[in-house]
Amino acid sequence: MSLSAQPVRLSTTAADFEAQFAARLHWSAETDGAIEQRVADILADVMQRGDAAVLEYTARFDGVSQDSVKALELTQAELKDAFEGLPEAQRCALEAAARRVRSYHEAQKKASGESWSYRDEDGTLLGQKVTPLDRVGIYVPGGKAAYPSSVLMNAIPAHVAGVQEIIMVVPTPRGEKNSLVLAAAYVAGVSRAFTIGGAQAVAALAYGTATVPKVDKITGPGNAYVASAKKRVFGMVGIDMIAGPSEILVLADGSTPAEWVAMDLFSQAEHDELAQSILLCPDASYLDAVQAEIDRLLPAMPRAEIIAKSLNDRGALIQTRDMAEACALSNRIAPEHLEVSSAEPHRWEPLLKHAGAIFLGAYTSESLGDYCAGPNHVLPTSGTARFSSPLGVYDFQKRSSLIEVSAAGAQTLGVIAAELAYGEGLQAHARAAELRLNNIPPMRGES
Amino acid sequence: MSLSAQPVRLSTTAADFEAQFAARLHWSAETDGAIEQRVADILADVMQRGDAAVLEYTARFDGVSQDSVKALELTQAELKDAFEGLPEAQRCALEAAARRVRSYHEAQKKASGESWSYRDEDGTLLGQKVTPLDRVGIYVPGGKAAYPSSVLMNAIPAHVAGVQEIIMVVPTPRGEKNSLVLAAAYVAGVSRAFTIGGAQAVAALAYGTATVPKVDKITGPGNAYVASAKKRVFGMVGIDMIAGPSEILVLADGSTPAEWVAMDLFSQAEHDELAQSILLCPDASYLDAVQAEIDRLLPAMPRAEIIAKSLNDRGALIQTRDMAEACALSNRIAPEHLEVSSAEPHRWEPLLKHAGAIFLGAYTSESLGDYCAGPNHVLPTSGTARFSSPLGVYDFQKRSSLIEVSAAGAQTLGVIAAELAYGEGLQAHARAAELRLNNIPPMRGES
Repeated sequence: MSLSAQPVRLSTTAADFEAQFAARLHWSAETDGAIEQRVADILADVMQRGDAAVLEYTARFDGVSQDSVKALELTQAELKDAFEGLPEAQRCALEAAARRVRSYHEAQKKASGESWSYRDEDGTLLGQKVTPLDRVGIYVPGGKAAYPSSVLMNAIPAHVAGVQEIIMVVPTPRGEKNSLVLAAAYVAGVSRAFTIGGAQAVAALAYGTATVPKVDKITGPGNAYVASAKKRVFGMVGIDMIAGPSEILVLADGSTPAEWVAMDLFSQAEHDELAQSILLCPDASYLDAVQAEIDRLLPAMPRAEIIAKSLNDRGALIQTRDMAEACALSNRIAPEHLEVSSAEPHRWEPLLKHAGAIFLGAYTSESLGDYCAGPNHVLPTSGTARFSSPLGVYDFQKRSSLIEVSAAGAQTLGVIAAELAYGEGLQAHARAAELRLNNIPPMRGES
Repeated sequence: MSLSAQPVRLSTTAADFEAQFAARLHWSAETDGAIEQRVADILADVMQRGDAAVLEYTARFDGVSQDSVKALELTQAELKDAFEGLPEAQRCALEAAARRVRSYHEAQKKASGESWSYRDEDGTLLGQKVTPLDRVGIYVPGGKAAYPSSVLMNAIPAHVAGVQEIIMVVPTPRGEKNSLVLAAAYVAGVSRAFTIGGAQAVAALAYGTATVPKVDKITGPGNAYVASAKKRVFGMVGIDMIAGPSEILVLADGSTPAEWVAMDLFSQAEHDELAQSILLCPDASYLDAVQAEIDRLLPAMPRAEIIAKSLNDRGALIQTRDMAEACALSNRIAPEHLEVSSAEPHRWEPLLKHAGAIFLGAYTSESLGDYCAGPNHVLPTSGTARFSSPLGVYDFQKRSSLIEVSAAGAQTLGVIAAELAYGEGLQAHARAAELRLNNIPPMRGES
């Protein structure tokens, strides 16, 4: 039987649209209790036994046995060799992508990541000092989902933020190293790299061991064990987000070649059977044309089976009343990737409130953004774009408020603060403010 | 026996300093398994039964019985009445504080929370669109720790960010409403307020019920149940931080009146027996003078018992070799509140890397910052200032990347993206990029 990919076909005018739409969007981030317990045990063990525990789990899960965690560290020379051993085209592409990603994140730092302050009329200084984190850990998956581009997207913003030490962990199942990943670590300026993975690597980074330094924050994607471990150490260290399956939503007005859009839907679907590709368009004949291109293009795709499963189970081609309705529907989904494949992308962009990244116009395929346009490809999934943001320089910085109250300012502020503090029953707060007044009143409510 | 407060006296030159210092700093955010299980049950119940479950828990835990959750909602008229019923001095203080907090957060938004974009040499547009969250929930504790200032500090940044709906929840044990809290909700522009609390209130906000709208993010402090509930719903909604006990660190060069510094230490200690007040100073005689002021001032303080317990159990007066060593020690602690009580605060400020808020100079008591200087008083505790920031406008905004690749840009970017995508084995990604090239090469690795 030949492979076919038939995303469900919906129309917003159908009576059962809401139910069908909800069913298609449904995805549950259900946590597996057994995994959670395993992870809790591994974390406790690494906290207790450090390097010894890391070595044991690495031998057991990755089939890599060493006498010391030090032996699992990759040297800078190995990273450099990996880079220099790449074919020239790959080397150039990696460097070009890194350059663009760096330049975008430098602009981001300038636009929103610099310290600021001002003085009010009393001479009181108010502001925020923005400083980099000292040391961060980057988790890079090994095996089939080993993506060098993710190394760039995690390490470069940290580097631009000014983080002094970037510690990468990447499992090497059965000892297989991915030379593109190592090369990307070299290009991105990773400080140290360990070939460890899973919950044990997250634990090593969060608690520190004799060999692996404790970090302030852990970013990067991973499997269910890694996600559970990150969620568990959250609070002790910072983490980025917990990612769900990847998604793309294409809003099309019918002006982009149907072949391009079909391939954009494939490029999401090929990630993973759980990935989701949705196309919204007011024009039914365009939806037909895209379906025809899906049928035509699918057989030649090396990952055709994954693509077909993803599109059949989770894909959708939805006819909307008009583009405005498509935009409103998109806001309800809050997609990770949002392509506005329209001749007038700037007409629709202001209507789009929630999305990880917005790709404007026919030429802006998601894949250009994934690799090298410059913006980060680590984006909020599963509707979390309603409240979270792409990974960025700001994830590797923190802010400290700056306050310098002048002698004059203390006179006006002291009266306000004391009034409110007495109201809350916090007399020492009130008194600390009153002691700075030129005329100190008697303390209220002395015991 | 009369009350006495004796913070431990340490010196960095003592042989056992590191051990003593570590012992004093130790605080474990240990989670109580029984609480976690109770919270999980409450969350599941509210998810399932909605309003009915909220009503039952509110009757059981707060002693407030109503027929509907609607009856637990406070009207805008009630909030306004609460404000208008306050003594004039309190009303003015609340408004003055709100005005300053708003003005600071407006400056913050301008400095780091605006959309930005640029075009590269190929005409490709790159940037970020910054938008407010749609709807947020603010948890306000009831009972003894009911702080109207916290209402301002949570609601105003949300309001400045442009959040359209701010939903406040505040438990009213035995039906007692705190009129200052209600007044603060009025001043801060809270959209709706429900007199519910605990894990059931967090669940109602995270999942939504027939009456309580589902929000995108929940901020605000609470007890162990609230903290556990927030951590559990994290990912489905955004949350701010999980706060530990409050702390102050004072770096003193001996130039500030000892009485002022003693009262600043009290103002932290009076919060809570677990609160921590630490003073670092190179001058032993100044430490003596502060201890003498502690002894002199303590008896008159209404909250003397809490202050004494906090200072005895967790306080410390530490003699350092010099101010530079004091700054280095401060960076190891990464305190929530950091007072630089020095005649030359700007000499030391650049050395301070990790702190929630930095209070510069003798006039800048922490309490002025707590209430009305302008910056937020919701700050990272327990050393989390190493990787997190004060609550701010940015917590109520999210970012979407903007990318518009020009036809010319697609030619250069397409080649780079395709090279890297083929390297990762993602052929549809590569092909989506190649289809936008003027000269489309044959697809590599066709199956």
